[in-house]
Parts: sequence; structure tokens; C-alpha cells
Amino acid sequence: MTRGSPKGPIVVVNPNSNEDVTQGMREALAGFALPGGPAIECVTLTEGPFGVETQEDSDSVVMPLARMAKERTDASGFVIACYSDPGLEVCRSVASCPVFGIQESAVLTAMSRADLFGSIALSPKSILRHRPYMRRMGVLGRLANIRPLNMSVAQSHAPESFPRIVEVGEALKADGAGAILLGCAGMAGHRVALEAALGVPVIDPVQAATGMALAQALVAG
Amino acid sequence: MTRGSPKGPIVVVNPNSNEDVTQGMREALAGFALPGGPAIECVTLTEGPFGVETQEDSDSVVMPLARMAKERTDASGFVIACYSDPGLEVCRSVASCPVFGIQESAVLTAMSRADLFGSIALSPKSILRHRPYMRRMGVLGRLANIRPLNMSVAQSHAPESFPRIVEVGEALKADGAGAILLGCAGMAGHRVALEAALGVPVIDPVQAATGMALAQALVAG
Amino acid sequence: MTRGSPKGPIVVVNPNSNEDVTQGMREALAGFALPGGPAIECVTLTEGPFGVETQEDSDSVVMPLARMAKERTDASGFVIACYSDPGLEVCRSVASCPVFGIQESAVLTAMSRADLFGSIALSPKSILRHRPYMRRMGVLGRLANIRPLNMSVAQSHAPESFPRIVEVGEALKADGAGAILLGCAGMAGHRVALEAALGVPVIDPVQAATGMALAQALVAG
Amino acid sequence: MTRGSPKGPIVVVNPNSNEDVTQGMREALAGFALPGGPAIECVTLTEGPFGVETQEDSDSVVMPLARMAKERTDASGFVIACYSDPGLEVCRSVASCPVFGIQESAVLTAMSRADLFGSIALSPKSILRHRPYMRRMGVLGRLANIRPLNMSVAQSHAPESFPRIVEVGEALKADGAGAILLGCAGMAGHRVALEAALGVPVIDPVQAATGMALAQALVAG
Amino acid sequence: MTRGSPKGPIVVVNPNSNEDVTQGMREALAGFALPGGPAIECVTLTEGPFGVETQEDSDSVVMPLARMAKERTDASGFVIACYSDPGLEVCRSVASCPVFGIQESAVLTAMSRADLFGSIALSPKSILRHRPYMRRMGVLGRLANIRPLNMSVAQSHAPESFPRIVEVGEALKADGAGAILLGCAGMAGHRVALEAALGVPVIDPVQAATGMALAQALVAG
Amino acid sequence: MTRGSPKGPIVVVNPNSNEDVTQGMREALAGFALPGGPAIECVTLTEGPFGVETQEDSDSVVMPLARMAKERTDASGFVIACYSDPGLEVCRSVASCPVFGIQESAVLTAMSRADLFGSIALSPKSILRHRPYMRRMGVLGRLANIRPLNMSVAQSHAPESFPRIVEVGEALKADGAGAILLGCAGMAGHRVALEAALGVPVIDPVQAATGMALAQALVAG
Repeated sequence: MTRGSPKGPIVVVNPNSNEDVTQGMREALAGFALPGGPAIECVTLTEGPFGVETQEDSDSVVMPLARMAKERTDASGFVIACYSDPGLEVCRSVASCPVFGIQESAVLTAMSRADLFGSIALSPKSILRHRPYMRRMGVLGRLANIRPLNMSVAQSHAPESFPRIVEVGEALKADGAGAILLGCAGMAGHRVALEAALGVPVIDPVQAATGMALAQALVAG
Repeated sequence: MTRGSPKGPIVVVNPNSNEDVTQGMREALAGFALPGGPAIECVTLTEGPFGVETQEDSDSVVMPLARMAKERTDASGFVIACYSDPGLEVCRSVASCPVFGIQESAVLTAMSRADLFGSIALSPKSILRHRPYMRRMGVLGRLANIRPLNMSVAQSHAPESFPRIVEVGEALKADGAGAILLGCAGMAGHRVALEAALGVPVIDPVQAATGMALAQALVAG
Repeated sequence: MTRGSPKGPIVVVNPNSNEDVTQGMREALAGFALPGGPAIECVTLTEGPFGVETQEDSDSVVMPLARMAKERTDASGFVIACYSDPGLEVCRSVASCPVFGIQESAVLTAMSRADLFGSIALSPKSILRHRPYMRRMGVLGRLANIRPLNMSVAQSHAPESFPRIVEVGEALKADGAGAILLGCAGMAGHRVALEAALGVPVIDPVQAATGMALAQALVAG
Repeated sequence: MTRGSPKGPIVVVNPNSNEDVTQGMREALAGFALPGGPAIECVTLTEGPFGVETQEDSDSVVMPLARMAKERTDASGFVIACYSDPGLEVCRSVASCPVFGIQESAVLTAMSRADLFGSIALSPKSILRHRPYMRRMGVLGRLANIRPLNMSVAQSHAPESFPRIVEVGEALKADGAGAILLGCAGMAGHRVALEAALGVPVIDPVQAATGMALAQALVAG
Repeated sequence: MTRGSPKGPIVVVNPNSNEDVTQGMREALAGFALPGGPAIECVTLTEGPFGVETQEDSDSVVMPLARMAKERTDASGFVIACYSDPGLEVCRSVASCPVFGIQESAVLTAMSRADLFGSIALSPKSILRHRPYMRRMGVLGRLANIRPLNMSVAQSHAPESFPRIVEVGEALKADGAGAILLGCAGMAGHRVALEAALGVPVIDPVQAATGMALAQALVAG
Repeated sequence: MTRGSPKGPIVVVNPNSNEDVTQGMREALAGFALPGGPAIECVTLTEGPFGVETQEDSDSVVMPLARMAKERTDASGFVIACYSDPGLEVCRSVASCPVFGIQESAVLTAMSRADLFGSIALSPKSILRHRPYMRRMGVLGRLANIRPLNMSVAQSHAPESFPRIVEVGEALKADGAGAILLGCAGMAGHRVALEAALGVPVIDPVQAATGMALAQALVAG
């Protein structure tokens, strides 16, 4: 197994070029940076589109991510912080450290907390992308449901959307979900309040992937 | 979601009463104890049998584990360190913090490293227990194979068993496995050398579960 | 294959200590005691809780059931008459005759009567236990749905609950179910009337398991 | 649910016109005829071919079986005693009692005895028919393997074939099978000796279906 | 692989004896007859019932279809144009050219156009036949849903049924379907308008099977 | 459903820049160009690498393929002629006609010819890419096996490799495969001889996809 430097940073790449989103990740991940452990370095993919919304947007960042994954030989972990996990395979084939996708990590983390999990998507269109991805993972038997907010990324981020997010979360609980995934980085700011409102674990995918990267880095360390 | 103290220790319980095994876990988990993070506390279940080998042994520790999980309200995570994950459901139903089984955690960790994983079991008898458990998890589609060493726990621990363990690991790779699980705590000491010999990630289940517990505790922190 | 005495009784154990429930089983199973066939012996697990409702209740009867299964070397079949099938694996590992769980037997019996089956559960909480069990069995592809009564055991037993049970049964038929499982011993008294009301087979799990035990005993006889 | 007379006979139909085979069934089922229970009536489908070997043979008996199932309104159970379960759906749609196929019943019975089952087939060609049937049942996740004898029906019946049958049974055990199905009526005479030789349950499909029919008839009685 | 004449006709058999239905097929398939390619020959199974509605109807055409499949050694493809695909296995075992069922072909064609497909059935009863067939195909993971029109064949054919068909199609889209199957030949006349109304591919199974037969014939040619 | 011109050509893109490969496709597809049907236009992706061997090679052609798919509004079908189906999703999201991947089409075509199919891969590494793709398609239950030649593209193309290809094909038949996929364009020249040698259908993926595209175009025409 190839391995980067066990003491090297965990590199968390925001594949869109919106630096505000990267800054939000830095804040959400602050708790993972412990003395003696690897640094958590959040970086922006400057070649990326301002937002990743379509399949074209998503595929457009694959080769730039592969180049970055190949270059960062100092990293102890590499996190692709976009929910469609663009470039996960190619980054794994060229990186010298473990590579984590945030959707994959969120699903696996949810599976350690509940028998069935549910996912909150932005739109029916994104559901059509997420379901085959989970089928490829071979975990559809653990999926309670994916339900759409019918919102844009920006709307999902706004505080006034919280009641709608709770409503979708409750519907997923009625579908049998014992843990809930936030299916877009835009919702990360609602995690703590949503977990309190729903009474079941709510998973922020960027945190999930970074946590898995940290755990792996400490094994290697 | 119930939660123990985010700053409380991660309690790793060895369900057999062999204190040597607990000491081995302490050593394997040393790297997870970071300044500012939760302590890693390895404890022995004194009511447990000296070794957990049969279904009766495994079921005999369930109620004692449940009592311990209920009592440790100070914990930020609770790890059941026996590969058959005895008492996982009941501990989850009574604990005030997330509870992790080591087989479940090892499988989920392997799924973040490779498409197919393989598992090294002690005997054909243990395979008959592991397969339905993985079917219950809904992940058999990701299993390359489970292959037996045809050894006792003690034999699997011995340094002279390393060539046989490599041989079984190579057979699992030929089955398509891109990551290997050590299906018994006895093999933990071989992890680093086996990973070097096989060239693919080798997962120690106790490390996997403790890593997942740490990642979750830091989210809550 | 180990085998008890082919002429020995089929031992049906009620794992809760409520003797009224055991008496109800005796009545429901009267038709299985034929001249020349094995006796049907319904016994109460005196160490059991008065009712099995939580995961703790269920796990608490496992070791006492294992002791009883080991002792009854005279039996030609052993039935664990609690819907969560507590101790099924360990009883199988120590008994000298075939051992049957009532949920497992009910599911298999339903699969001989219809393509899809449905199950009437007491509560959403019990569904969360039944679904992974059916996934472990590998039969979720045949499950139409599990729907809750939102009742206690005692309520499900009461005659005035019949209309609600029919309502849930009809909903399961609309989900595609061609056979219906009674997901709690409390509902057994409604079986005949419910089958008449719904027009599809309604399976009493205790009868299903005893029937399978009888069929196996006659093969061995 | 339609129901024939609960006291009526269980009608076991041999779809081939070889009366010797029917007589063999009578002997294998003698133990199921108990005073106070339904009679076990084995009948020959005179329109059937002398042996059912090809898909054409199998399909040729479907309409004659349906006519017989419709006529026997006195039956409390109807068993189609050919391993490919010809006409199971149509017989169910026209009969007034429960209808059982012997392959389906054998698989369900095996699932009550072991986690994985194996099946001994006559030839690779028959495997190609059995596997999609088990996929249709939704139970392939419980199948260890199907292995061919590479024999004709007559050869599989002969006493001198026993060593080869044991050999295939041992290979299925090595595949993980904890119960073995005899995938052709020709092998029924080897059941008892094979079970003794292998040490795991060996299922005769005609006995399995008749046992399930008896159990259902006693519920209705 | 046995092969008929590559230049021979594709024989499309209407298994019911209603010549009007056969004529409708001729019209729907006109576009597949190209100069230089095989002829498309639509024939009526004169032994068939006037309509295929029940399981008995469906099974009654199996042996006549097998005879026809065996006789047409001149064909380059053989299409069984009834949605329950009666006799598909036996025709494959006796024909000298590839044989196609229209449900199977429609499902496979839909899988080339969308991740999830939906199917419009005449009635809940037909759904009970279609679902196990798709399970046998091993493709239930791609099925969004099957929804009934609650109509007879004749009603589904009538122009005034179009709004109801659109309504069911929209419901299937809401279930996630990205392609829609017309689950009865009666609906074929609505295909073009329905595709325009729904904005997703709508598959006529007879066209799908004939298209697959043509593609295979051209490979062989 | 968006649609290109029904009379427009079927555009078959070779994503590598090796014009010899494109010429080979032209020859293999000659039989699909019929008077009155769409033209078959084979084009080379000049931006592509000379050969597509690694994940990086495969991902590098995604965006160029998307641009071409968007531009060719005249096409009635668009075929991506590389076995890893690079860019299938994004091309579908931007094209005005149906888009076909050759692996997907080959699998679906095989499923119309046999219950289980097998695939001949170049190397174990390519198997690791093909299996998750088939899992994503939800068809692993129909896969007999994937077996490697342990050859380069060029080697697989050479006439002297035929005996090895037959050997792997026979091994897949022993695994239960009733149809064989050629898992690399390099093997296309062996198709006819291999089909004759093995006696089961052998599928050339480029032909399979072009056949499906033609069938769809004729429906729309």
C-alpha cells in the first residue's frame, strides 16, 4: 500500500473556486486539528467552476483534482470535498496517500450509526446521480430514502431554510432512517441544530471524510 | 441523538478476561491518544471467558457488556473489541454515546480503501458466523472472500504463523480483494508486516473501530 | 447432523414468564398433536421477563434458552416462541435436535404461499429490529412492507383492535403482499378472522415454526 | 384465501408417467400419514412423458397439471413432485388448496437448517435451469453452490453412484453449505445414508414439500 | 451457438388469435424493415386464446409457440410478442435462431436509456406476475415502480384512456423513473404521444424486441 | 425526451487517437449500414491518448467526448467506443440523441442471450474497474465471472493469441457463462472464430452498442 508522510497534512480540496465555501470547511473541521496529529489543510481548486451543479461541472474538475492528488506527496490523506465524489478513482490511482470522497465517507459513517440512513438532496436531479453511486457502492439495502429539498445550494445554506430541512429530515425518519446525510456542502451549517431537532445522528460529509482520513493517518503514524 | 461527554474517554472493552489481550490493544491504540482529544481507555470484561471461541462464549458476554455500556455515561465512545460484535444492538440501545463493533468498523473502513475486501478467519466455523453478519450489514456485494487459516487464536498470534497468513492474504488478493481484514484480534501484531508483504491496506479491526469512535467524538466535541 | 429422539416431543418455549401466553400457544398448537406423531410440549421460560419488549429483554433470555436447548436431549424439535428469535444461533450450536425460530419460520412459510409477504409489527421500533433480521436471512427482496399497529402487546391482543389490524393488513395488501405475518404472539387470536377478512394467507409464527418442526421430525422418524 | 377441505388428502403428483417413481414417493412419504391427519395420496400424471429431462418435457406437463389441480377440490394440499416445479403458478391460480413445488419447498426447508445450502444437480444443463429459478425466489444469497453429478436420472438412482454423490456433497460443504438438497427425485433413496456420511441435513424435496403441505393443512384443520 | 439463416425473416408471433392485434404490430414495426436487412414477418398463433389475460391463458400457448419456434428454421430471429414472455426458455432450447421476449427486451432497452425505469401495468394482478419475472432477470434494483391502470386490454387501447395513462406515467416519473415501459400491447398506439407528454423515453416492448432481434441478425449477417 | 434527427448518422467515437482502431470499427460495423437506415459514422477523438489503458487515460477523454456529443446535433445515436464507457453520464446530459456505452450495451445484449454471461478482460487491473461498473448497473447477479487474459491490448489483437482467448472462454463457460463479452476492442477480430469455437454467443461491444443505437433510431424514425 502506498502511503504519504504519516505526519503530513490531511488535504481537503474544495473543487469549486468559491473561497467562501473553503472557509466554511475550515471552520467545520477545526476540531479535527489536534496537537500531535496531522494538520487539516483546506484548499480551493482554482480551476474549478464557481459552483458544481451539473454533471459537466462535476466532470470538469476530475483532471485538475488528479493533478493535485499526484502533486501532494506530502499529504497523509486527501479529501475530495464535493458530494458527487468527482475523480475519486483516478485520484486513488495516482496519489501516494489514502483518498476519501465525502459521499462515500458519509454513507459509511452513517452505516456505523444506524441500520437505515436517509439523505437530504437539493433536487430530484441530484437524486438521479446519488442513487446509482450508492448502487455502485453496493449499499442500497441500507438506504431508507433520498428526499429532495427542491432548493439551490444558496437556498439550502440560508437560515430561513431550516424548517424545510427539518421537515425533510422528519420524512426520512418516517421512511425508517436512523441517521441522516446532508447531501450538499451548503447545508453543513445546519448540522448541529438539525441533529438536536431530529434526535438522530446527522452526518456532515466533509467532517465524515476528514474523520476517516484522520483515523487512517493515525494508524499509519 | 444521545451523546456522552464529548471530552470523555473512548472506552475499548476486551470482552474476554485475558488481560494480556487488553494490554496488546493498549499498544495498538497508542497512536490514537492525542493531546486535546479523548483518552483511549482499554478495559477488560472480568466476567468474560478467558477466550471467546464458541457462539456460547460470544453470547455469554452480551448482558455484562450491556451493563458496562449503560454505566459508562462518561464515555464519548464505546468499542466492543471482539470480532463477532457481541451485544452491539443492546449496547446501542442503552449507551449514552456512540457504540462501535470491531467487525462492522473494519468492514466499513475497508470499503473506504478498496472496491472488494477479503477477510482472514481462524477457521471454517468462524466463516459461518461472519458471512451472515456481513449479509445483515448488506455488504456481501463488496466481499471478495473469507478464507480460513485453520488455526487457533494462540497459533494465529505466533510469529511463525506469518508465512501462512501471507499465503492466505495472497489468495484473497487473487480473489480480487483490494483490502484485507484481520478477522481475529490474535493477528493484530502481524498488521504492519502483512501490509508491507501484500502491498494492500490491512485493517486491524480494533484500530478501525477506535478510529471511527475518535472521528465521531471530534465531531461532537 | 445431530438429531434428538425422533419420537420425542417438540418443545415450544415461551421465553417470557407469562404463563397465560404459554397457555394460548397450547391452544393454537392443539391441531399439530396427532396420534403416532410427536407430542407438542409448550413450556414457559421461568427466568424470562414477564414480557419481551426491549432489546435488553430479548438478549436477557438467550443464555437461559441455550441451557434449556442443551438439556432437552429428548426433544425431536425445539421452537423459540418469541418473534425476535433470541438465541437461535446458540441453541442450534448446543441442541441435539433441529431448532426453529418463529420469525424465520413464518417468513419461510409465507414464501411458500405468495411472492411478496407483509408483516404487521407492533411499533416502528420493532420494525427497526425486524428489517435487519430479514436482511440477514437474505429475503428482503420478497418483503412487501412491514407496517406498525402502534400498539402494545396487550392492545394487539384485545378484540377491539381487530379493525385496526384489518386496516394495516389491507395496507400491506396494497403494498403487494400476498401473505401476511402476525409480527407478535399477541395477535395470534386474530389469525382466523383476519385471514377471512383479507382473503390471503395469514401466518401465525408459532404455528409456522411448530409445523416446520413437525415436518422435520416426521422425516427423521 | 381459498382452501380445500382441511381433512382432504394431500395429493402428491408425479408429473412423469413412470409408476415406479410414484411408488418410490409413496415409500418416502409413508411417515407423513398419521392417524387424524390428512391422507398422503401419490398419483401419476398419465399424460406426462416417461421422464422429465428437457425444458420441453417440463413445459409439456404444465396444462395437464393445471387441469388436475383444478379438479382435485377435495385436496387439502397439492404437491408438484418434479424438481423444476412445472406449473406452480398456474396450479396456484386454479387450485382450491395450497400448492407446493418441491424445489421451492426444499430451498425453504434448507433455509431453516443452515445459513448456506448447496444443491446436487444431475448435470451442468440442469444448473442453468435451477439458478434462475432460485434468483426468481430471491434466495441466491443463501446458495453456497450447485454442483453437477454428470449423471442421468437412472445413474443417480443406482447404489453404485453413492460414492460420487458423497464426493459432490463434500465439495458443497467445502463451498460453505450447511445443508444439502437432492436436486432430482432419482437420488431420494440415498438421503439417509448421505446425511450420515456428510453430517449435515440432507433434504429430499418431495418430503420437504409434503411436510410443508401437512403443516399448512393442520393449521387449517 | 446455433443460428438460423442470417438473411431469413425476423418472425414476430402474436400468441393470441386476435388478428387485429397482429395487424397493429405490423404497423408498429414497419420502420424496422430496411432494404438489405431481414424481413419482419408478423404472424398470429392460431391455437392461442383470443386474448392472453390469465396465467392459464399464458401457459396454454407455450407448447404451440415451441412447435412454431422449432419449425421456423428459416428465421434469423424469433420474437414472442406477449408481455409475460410465455415459452421463452423452451423456444430458446429448440429454435435455431436467437429468441426474444418482449418484456425482457423492453427492460433491457430501458436500462440503456435511464438508471431507473417504470412500468405501466393493466392491473395489480399483472404486477404480481411482472415483479417475480424481473426478479428472475436480476434487475429489480433498476425498477422505480410498476403502477396499474386498473383497466382491461381493450380499455387501455382506447384513445380516451390517454389522460389516465399520462397520469400513471407522471406518477412513475415521481417514483424516479427515467424511462417508461408500456406493460401491455394494448397501449402501443399511445407511445409517441406519451413520450411527448412525459418527456422521457417510452418503450413499446414489441418494438424493443424486434429492434434487438434486428441488431443481432445484422451481426450474424 | 430529446432526440436528434432520426435520419441522422449514428456517430461511433473511438476515444483514442489510433486511427487504425477506428478503421477496424468501420469494418466490424459495415453490416449495420442499410439503405434507408441511418449511416454509421466512425470518428477518432483526436484529443485522446494513443491508447486508453489507465484510469487517467480514461478520465482524460471525458470532457472532449462531452464537447463532441454536444456538437453532433445531427446524430440519431452516439456511441462511446471504449470499454470503460468514459463520459457516458455527461454525454447523456448534453447530447440531443440517445447515447450508448459499449460495456453497458454489451452486458444488456448478453442478458438477452443467456442467463449468465462472462467477460474476458485484459488484466486483473481492468477487472477491478469492470466489476464496480457492473455493480452500478445492478446486474452482478447475472455475471458468471470476469477472467483476465493477462495481455496488453496489442497482444490480445494478435492472431497467435487466439488459443489463449479460447482457453479463457472455456473457463468462463465452466463458470456457467452462456454468453461471452469481449472486454476490449482489441479482441474484436476474434469474435466470429471464438463464437464458433465456444458454441455460445460472443458479443463484440462496439457491435452491441451500434445495434442498440440503430434499433432506437428506427423507432424514432
